[in-house]
Amino acid sequence: MRRIEKSDIEQIALGAALLGTGGGGDPAIGRLMAEAAIDRWGPVTLLAPDEVPDDAWVLPMSGIGAPTVSIEKLPSWQEMDAAFEDAEQALGQHAFATMPIEVGGGNSLLPIVVAARRGIPMVDADAMGRAFPESQMVSFALDGMVTRFACLADEKGNRVTIRPATARWQELLARPLVDAMGASAMVCDYPVTGAELRASALAGTVTLAQRIGRAILDPVVNCGDPLRAVLAKTSGFLLLRAKIVDLHRTTAGGFVRGTVTLAGIDEDRGRTLTVSFQNEFLFAHEDGRSVAMTPDLIALLDRDTARPWTTESLRYGMRVHLVAMPCHPKWRTPAGLRAVGPQYFGYDVAYTPIERLVQREVA
Amino acid sequence: MRRIEKSDIEQIALGAALLGTGGGGDPAIGRLMAEAAIDRWGPVTLLAPDEVPDDAWVLPMSGIGAPTVSIEKLPSWQEMDAAFEDAEQALGQHAFATMPIEVGGGNSLLPIVVAARRGIPMVDADAMGRAFPESQMVSFALDGMVTRFACLADEKGNRVTIRPATARWQELLARPLVDAMGASAMVCDYPVTGAELRASALAGTVTLAQRIGRAILDPVVNCGDPLRAVLAKTSGFLLLRAKIVDLHRTTAGGFVRGTVTLAGIDEDRGRTLTVSFQNEFLFAHEDGRSVAMTPDLIALLDRDTARPWTTESLRYGMRVHLVAMPCHPKWRTPAGLRAVGPQYFGYDVAYTPIERLVQREVA
Repeated sequence: MRRIEKSDIEQIALGAALLGTGGGGDPAIGRLMAEAAIDRWGPVTLLAPDEVPDDAWVLPMSGIGAPTVSIEKLPSWQEMDAAFEDAEQALGQHAFATMPIEVGGGNSLLPIVVAARRGIPMVDADAMGRAFPESQMVSFALDGMVTRFACLADEKGNRVTIRPATARWQELLARPLVDAMGASAMVCDYPVTGAELRASALAGTVTLAQRIGRAILDPVVNCGDPLRAVLAKTSGFLLLRAKIVDLHRTTAGGFVRGTVTLAGIDEDRGRTLTVSFQNEFLFAHEDGRSVAMTPDLIALLDRDTARPWTTESLRYGMRVHLVAMPCHPKWRTPAGLRAVGPQYFGYDVAYTPIERLVQREVA
Repeated sequence: MRRIEKSDIEQIALGAALLGTGGGGDPAIGRLMAEAAIDRWGPVTLLAPDEVPDDAWVLPMSGIGAPTVSIEKLPSWQEMDAAFEDAEQALGQHAFATMPIEVGGGNSLLPIVVAARRGIPMVDADAMGRAFPESQMVSFALDGMVTRFACLADEKGNRVTIRPATARWQELLARPLVDAMGASAMVCDYPVTGAELRASALAGTVTLAQRIGRAILDPVVNCGDPLRAVLAKTSGFLLLRAKIVDLHRTTAGGFVRGTVTLAGIDEDRGRTLTVSFQNEFLFAHEDGRSVAMTPDLIALLDRDTARPWTTESLRYGMRVHLVAMPCHPKWRTPAGLRAVGPQYFGYDVAYTPIERLVQREVA
C-alpha cells in the first residue's frame, strides 16, 4: 500500500504512455484530469493485488474509442460516474476498489480520477501490461473469463450495459456503439473479485509505469540520458533514429488506423521503416523484413526527451527514436498469440520475439 | 377484457400485417409462434387500456431489425425471456401486462407469446397504429417521453440495456447494435404505467387488426369480396391493380430498403407506379406525382385473397392491389409529421392526406 500524490502523476502518465505503445490515451489529458482530481478530492491509495480481499469487487475504468477523438471530445468524471454507478447497480453492491484495464497515458490515469472522487483505492495492476485496441484483449479473457457486463456512458447522457455472450462479442457490440456515441466513451468492464484479480491480472504495472516515467523525467535517475534509462528499465531496444516523412491516419469504425513512415537520420541515414497502427503500434517492417511486432511493445519516443508519442499526436517532420520492448510472457503463449499476435491483426508473419529479431539484425 | 384463443390468431396476424404497411414482421411466423404459445401455455387475456391500473407496469415486446433477416433467423421465446427479464430487472418489479409497440404481422403477435408464456395479460393498444421503421416513431415519444430503458437480446445470448439520453438516441444506439447482432433482435422498450399508456397509446388496435383479418378471411363477413371489405374497415382506397415488374431490395444498416415498380393490369393497364420502402412502405409516386405517402398506410394486397404482402416477401410477377388508408390523427399533427412525415424520410414533398390525393385523382 502506498499513496499516489499529485507529484506522482506526471511520472505515471509518461511511463504509462510509453507502455501504451502509441495508444491508451493522451498523457497530458490523463495527467491534468488526475491532478485536478487529487487537488479536489485528495490523494489516492494504491494497493498491491495481495491487499485486496478475496471476495471484494474491483471495477476497472477506462476510455474506449479512437484516441484522435478523445483528445478533442475530452472525458469527464460525470461520464465515469455514470458508467461506474451503472456497474455498481449491475453488481448489486459498491466496489471495493478500481483499477486500470490497460496501461496508457489516459487509461492508467482515469482510475485515479475514479479512486480520488469516490474515496476508494486503486489496485496496482492491469489486464494487458500495455494497451491493445480491442476489448477482449485482456488477461481475464485469455484466462477464460467473459465480462459479467460492460457499462458504457457518453457525454450526451447515454448509458448502455452490455452482457455479452462471449469476450469477443463484447468488442463486436461495444465498438459500433462507441462509434455511434461519437467514437469515444467511458467504459467499466470486467468486474473482478480480489481472487480473480490475483489469478489473472498483471501485477505492479502502475508502479512500473511510474518507474519508467521517472527514468524519462528525472536527470538524477537517467544521468542525462533518458533513452538509455528507459531501455534499461524496459529491457528495450533502440531500432531506429528517424524523422517522420509520411503519415496516413484515418478515424473510422471506432478506431484510428494508419501507417507512419520513418526515414533514418544520423547513424541510421538511408534506412526507411514503416510502422502500422490500430490505436496502438502493431507492426514495424523495413524492406519487407519484420523489425518489431505485436504483442511486443513498439513506441516512438521524442529524440531529445524520450517522451512517448501517441499515434494520434504524430506529425510530419518529428524526430523520434523507434524502440521496442518484450511484452508480458502471458501474451507469448500460443493462446496469447492467437489473441493478439501479428496474424490476428492480419500481418501474415509468424511471431518472432523482439530479442530474436534484434539478434538477427546484429548477426 | 376478452380472451385470445388459438382460433383468433390467424385473423390478428393478417390484419396486423395489413396495418403493418409492409413491415412489422411476417404474419406466418407470428401466427405460428403465437399459436404454439397458446397450445403450450394457454389462451391470453386481452385488456382494454381502461382495465390497467394507473400504477401498473406494462412492458411492450417487439422485434427490431431487417425483416429480410427475421424470416430466416427466427425469433424465439428464449430471447424474449431475456429481454423481458432484463426489463423487469431494470424496473425492479414484475410487469402487470405486455403490449405491442407497433402493429405488424410479427410485432402484434410476439406480445401474445410473452403473455401466454408468462401468464400475464396483453393490452389492446400499441404506440404507432401501424408499423414504422425507427424506435422513436412512437406515440410515447411524440408525447415527450424518452424510454426509461430498452433491453435487447439476441439468439447468441447477448443482452444489452440502453438508457438513452433522448428518444432519438435510442434509435441511433440500438440500430448499429442490432446490425452487429445479425440485423434482427428482440427488444423490450417504453415501459409505461397504466396512466401513461392511457395518455399516449393508441387504443384498440389489436381488435382492429382482428376485425380486418376477419374481413380478409371470413366469406360471411366479406361476402366474397375481401378487398372491398378491407377498404370498408380501414376507410382505405384502391390505388392500382398491378403486377410487380421490378424490385430493388437491400439489407443494410439494420434495415431493408428498396423500391418496387408496379405496372398496371386490367383497368389500370398502361400506368406505372413506384413504391419505396424502409422496412415499411413509405411513398408511392406515378410520373413524379405523389400517390400515397407516410404516415398514411400503404399496403400491397394479394389480388385474389387481399392478404397483405410484406416488403421482404415481394417477388417479380406478383399480382397485387396497391391500397392506402388514413393514419391515426396523431401522426397528422405538425409534430407527428415532423417525426414520421415524408420529409423526415427524405422525400421532398409536403404531406397531403390520402383522402385529398385521391380526390385530386378523381377531379
